[in-house]
Amino acid sequence: MPSSAAHVAQDGFTVATRTRGFSEITGQVGAIVAASDVRVGIAQVFTLHTSCSLLISENADPSVRGDLERWFARVVPDGDPLFEHDAEGPDDMPAHIRSILTGVSLSVPVHDGKLQLGTWQGIYLWEHRHQPHQRRICVTVLGQA
Amino acid sequence: MPSSAAHVAQDGFTVATRTRGFSEITGQVGAIVAASDVRVGIAQVFTLHTSCSLLISENADPSVRGDLERWFARVVPDGDPLFEHDAEGPDDMPAHIRSILTGVSLSVPVHDGKLQLGTWQGIYLWEHRHQPHQRRICVTVLGQA
Amino acid sequence: MPSSAAHVAQDGFTVATRTRGFSEITGQVGAIVAASDVRVGIAQVFTLHTSCSLLISENADPSVRGDLERWFARVVPDGDPLFEHDAEGPDDMPAHIRSILTGVSLSVPVHDGKLQLGTWQGIYLWEHRHQPHQRRICVTVLGQA
Repeated sequence: MPSSAAHVAQDGFTVATRTRGFSEITGQVGAIVAASDVRVGIAQVFTLHTSCSLLISENADPSVRGDLERWFARVVPDGDPLFEHDAEGPDDMPAHIRSILTGVSLSVPVHDGKLQLGTWQGIYLWEHRHQPHQRRICVTVLGQA
Repeated sequence: MPSSAAHVAQDGFTVATRTRGFSEITGQVGAIVAASDVRVGIAQVFTLHTSCSLLISENADPSVRGDLERWFARVVPDGDPLFEHDAEGPDDMPAHIRSILTGVSLSVPVHDGKLQLGTWQGIYLWEHRHQPHQRRICVTVLGQA
Repeated sequence: MPSSAAHVAQDGFTVATRTRGFSEITGQVGAIVAASDVRVGIAQVFTLHTSCSLLISENADPSVRGDLERWFARVVPDGDPLFEHDAEGPDDMPAHIRSILTGVSLSVPVHDGKLQLGTWQGIYLWEHRHQPHQRRICVTVLGQA
């Protein structure tokens, strides 16, 4: 009864970020999907932090990521006197707001044992702090073989 | 053992958009849920593009969608000289930013074989480009009978 | 065969909000996870409304929540003449926009029978209306024992 052969796989990895910016993680997430027995289902991706985020973005033209940085820097400026929470520096509260606007949790369908992404979609970790960090990612794959 | 009778169903459809704006897809997603054997679980909805998005919005008063367009047009204006990525026109980069702010992936609980939405909640595809597009939606239903 | 013993649990609760602001719900979500038989999987959290939202935020310093309120009040101001949809008052349309920017649906991995959250992560319901409301939350736990 293949329709009731449910599978769950969970694995993780760490991204060492150097400064504010994007790290593509499509390959690492896809490898965890490939290592699972799931052919049809979803892959849920989660980062265990409040000052970075996960997003799906255009993966061809690097100027998209540059424009994203510039737009967010304008809308959520570092060192804004509006912010009371600045113990870790001028990028402390902006990092939390950027994280909330873009999210720490996303899911992608799995089809035929692979991430079902569009041609131009990539999964990115977005570091919002200027200092380097170790960012933990947890991937849970649910579905059937 | 009903508690271990897991089911996964996956199906998709395409929305032909005419211009920037909203298309309600609650009915199409609900039909895929109804056709599955899942009584209790979740429906994960995903669009395979980087210039449209999925969201849950108030579904009664059309002025809500008009106000959403006006607010996003103010905050992420077309043709903003801040943007370097404009190969496809003045709405190219704004479409990517709107897509990231509102997301391409969402999940809704399934209860008693139906989408468990609030009275005023509808699922919408939001087209962010002015030109018509064919937008692919993938729905994965996970749960038990 | 533990790998095919799939479990799904679904439960809910209501949060009585008094005014605009944050209610931490990590404990209630964690209790539903603990009451399920799921050891490895995901917990999907959903609120059935269009004028509140769910988010994962820093849970240590209350000034983070104060700064979030101040930033959103600046970017999506109550009573903005841009908005046509104001039948329920000056916070009506801003509540919908805040809800869409932060989302009504999120998922957290479950590991070893517990929510797999980072040290500083808490799950919050964010009420965007000034009047009190009864906010329904639905939690679906999927995975294996």
